[in-house]
Amino acid sequence: MYPNTLYLPELREMLSQSDDAGLREFCVAVHPAAAAEFTDLLNLNEAWTVLRHADLPTQAEIFSFYDLPKQIEFLENVDLGEMASLIVELPPDDRVDILNEADPKIATELLPMLPENIRRDIFLLQRYPEDTAGSLMTTDYARVSEETTVEHALEEIGAQSAQLETIYYLYVVDQHDHLRGVLSARDLVSSFGRPQTKISELMETHVVSVDADDDSDDVADQVAKYDLAAIPVVDDEHRMLGIITHDDVIDVMREQAVEDTQRIGGLAPLEESYLRVSIPRLTWNRGMWLILLFFGALLTALALEQYQGGPLLTASTAWLVLFIPLIISCGGNTGSQSATLIISALSAGHVSPQDWLKIILRELLQGVLLGIVLGTIGYLAALLMGPDNWIHALAIPITILLVVICGTLLGAMLPLIFEQIGWDPALMSTPFIAGIIDVVGIVIYMSVALMLISGG
Amino acid sequence: MYPNTLYLPELREMLSQSDDAGLREFCVAVHPAAAAEFTDLLNLNEAWTVLRHADLPTQAEIFSFYDLPKQIEFLENVDLGEMASLIVELPPDDRVDILNEADPKIATELLPMLPENIRRDIFLLQRYPEDTAGSLMTTDYARVSEETTVEHALEEIGAQSAQLETIYYLYVVDQHDHLRGVLSARDLVSSFGRPQTKISELMETHVVSVDADDDSDDVADQVAKYDLAAIPVVDDEHRMLGIITHDDVIDVMREQAVEDTQRIGGLAPLEESYLRVSIPRLTWNRGMWLILLFFGALLTALALEQYQGGPLLTASTAWLVLFIPLIISCGGNTGSQSATLIISALSAGHVSPQDWLKIILRELLQGVLLGIVLGTIGYLAALLMGPDNWIHALAIPITILLVVICGTLLGAMLPLIFEQIGWDPALMSTPFIAGIIDVVGIVIYMSVALMLISGG
Repeated sequence: MYPNTLYLPELREMLSQSDDAGLREFCVAVHPAAAAEFTDLLNLNEAWTVLRHADLPTQAEIFSFYDLPKQIEFLENVDLGEMASLIVELPPDDRVDILNEADPKIATELLPMLPENIRRDIFLLQRYPEDTAGSLMTTDYARVSEETTVEHALEEIGAQSAQLETIYYLYVVDQHDHLRGVLSARDLVSSFGRPQTKISELMETHVVSVDADDDSDDVADQVAKYDLAAIPVVDDEHRMLGIITHDDVIDVMREQAVEDTQRIGGLAPLEESYLRVSIPRLTWNRGMWLILLFFGALLTALALEQYQGGPLLTASTAWLVLFIPLIISCGGNTGSQSATLIISALSAGHVSPQDWLKIILRELLQGVLLGIVLGTIGYLAALLMGPDNWIHALAIPITILLVVICGTLLGAMLPLIFEQIGWDPALMSTPFIAGIIDVVGIVIYMSVALMLISGG
Repeated sequence: MYPNTLYLPELREMLSQSDDAGLREFCVAVHPAAAAEFTDLLNLNEAWTVLRHADLPTQAEIFSFYDLPKQIEFLENVDLGEMASLIVELPPDDRVDILNEADPKIATELLPMLPENIRRDIFLLQRYPEDTAGSLMTTDYARVSEETTVEHALEEIGAQSAQLETIYYLYVVDQHDHLRGVLSARDLVSSFGRPQTKISELMETHVVSVDADDDSDDVADQVAKYDLAAIPVVDDEHRMLGIITHDDVIDVMREQAVEDTQRIGGLAPLEESYLRVSIPRLTWNRGMWLILLFFGALLTALALEQYQGGPLLTASTAWLVLFIPLIISCGGNTGSQSATLIISALSAGHVSPQDWLKIILRELLQGVLLGIVLGTIGYLAALLMGPDNWIHALAIPITILLVVICGTLLGAMLPLIFEQIGWDPALMSTPFIAGIIDVVGIVIYMSVALMLISGG
């Protein structure tokens, strides 16, 4: 863990005493991520006062560790001239994120304050829609030509490195920016003893890259598969546009894990963190699914209504009512489990829709096993709480067996079908699957009971 | 995407024709990750024949891209002498994973074939339990002393680099291995022009590190927070033990996303991927939860039984039965949503148990809003399908409002309580929460109905 030697009260005291030396020391000595964390607890003006004690590159580094809403708060409340100098120092991808999310009026006011080359860079990156490789990339990367020597490359990279986000890889491009090869910093440094070697002799020509329009999920998959520290982004003609670094990939993966969980849990994913998102937005993201699920659940009432007035819902069979919630929750839980298994296996790349036959067989087998166990417990409960007639009580285990099998099969198949037709399988959320099985369960229960009781 | 020029049929043809030159070319030209992917589609003997055409370091690189069960299959079926040479070339953390999972008989047979220093390294790493920082680390990292010069460090790293997993950072240690500082490859290369500078002048002395016993979740948090490419692992006395690299962190995050989803979905997490895990193990991991949930659901039957024979379950109030499943699914879904929100917000670090008051207020407000909307729809349905008495029909909206509020509050609070007492909040799975709300829902429904109908 980071040595947590500086605390909020000390920072507040330095602020109240205008202790410039102390604040300068704070900005230098503390890791930028930790400085961001501490100052995040101050109010905006106090935080800005602290940051002003850092030199511009450190200021930008600390700033880049705030989350996006906080960065925008600064932009919208601090002197724009000062913000413009800071924004010039930020990595290109961070710059664009801030400008895209800020109040358009302020963004328009800010743009003319930035140097022309940075403005051009911003317009270039803004073209890529959210969640594409293009929107994640940075245009600051180390590039060399094939003809460069090791010595020359080391010198060049040494001079450029202050502006570069990473030098783990040097990308080798021709004069039209076509990506020709890649060289790791490791390979460059290990050739330190042979300074006249040409880069073309050392470089790897099979480069793993992504297209600017590729989905950010695909980027994460490639980086994870090939164990990369950064991945180049190219256009249709294989011209180099930028790179995506491992830290941005980790951020994307974290966001996506949260979004996937929310989808599986039956909510539209939130754009912001739980405490920041507004209550109306949160209620809407939940409400749209709840209402849909509610209409689905109304079908259970309609299904039950069909049996009203028949031989089932009379005094002597009133015990059947007792087990309605049990049977519904049993099917719902089994279905949710199967859906969770298949959705997470799909997203981890462990199964694909081509495996459907194997999956059906596995789920069927599990359904039978689980159904027999749960059905046995259910039968005992039915004999205790239900009718005196042991044949009538058989309605419970038979229904449970059938409902559990339905649950495993539907729960597994629906996400697979979604994946096959190209939709996000997590849209087939577990409450949605439970809702479908609820209706099926009621129909199975009433049909089985009718057969046993009218027949018996 | 990787240029997919080589396909399985061509590989099979080269194998059948014993085309050694072609196979050698395949091993050199194709990225090791892609070579692993292609050969994974062959049978074990074919794959091994292909791999034998690569030199040992390439062989080890390709091998390290197979998943663990496949690696163990190789170990248990291929000549052990050849495997021993290959295992020497693997990164130390991969070696230990394989030996820990392999058949103990084969592991015991293999160990004496390995050089003494590697055996010692294996015993050292095996001490750390799974899911700790120690179990993820590798002992191959670049180390220098404070007194070294830039020129000397570049030479030294150049010579060592073939054995090192990463040179993104050079770790500065004293003669007792205490971690004194860190220097990025970038800072080293950018000082290329000042070869006599001492490392101690360039190094960063505030080093973010983890303890060997820290949980792997904490490692991922630190790496994500500080945007690191690798993080050092130290012991109690701040002595350097090894490093964990970004690619291992990404793998951990992927595994944990799957495990969290499985827990939230109400299953004990699987150790292996869906298609590999055995049916009895899969059934057991699901069954233990399903049986627990089933006993919980039996409480709904017991709750309903209390009202049997009373004024509620008679012919004129039989319509109440129709809405039992609806009310149960309504509470369960709302509760699942809240639990999903809070569990994912906790794991992303967006909320902590200290925020409980804010969370209660937010959930209460959402519960009221959602309850009013769903209750209104429910009231309309009750008027259509239910009793002629509009006062009796009020039982439906009042119950829905109360159940939805219960759902949001219980769903949010239970994971928070688990987090507070130090348990994994994902253990408070959504089916579990839905199960609790089912019982509460039945009691609320019957109580509200009794009050309205006996009173009306």
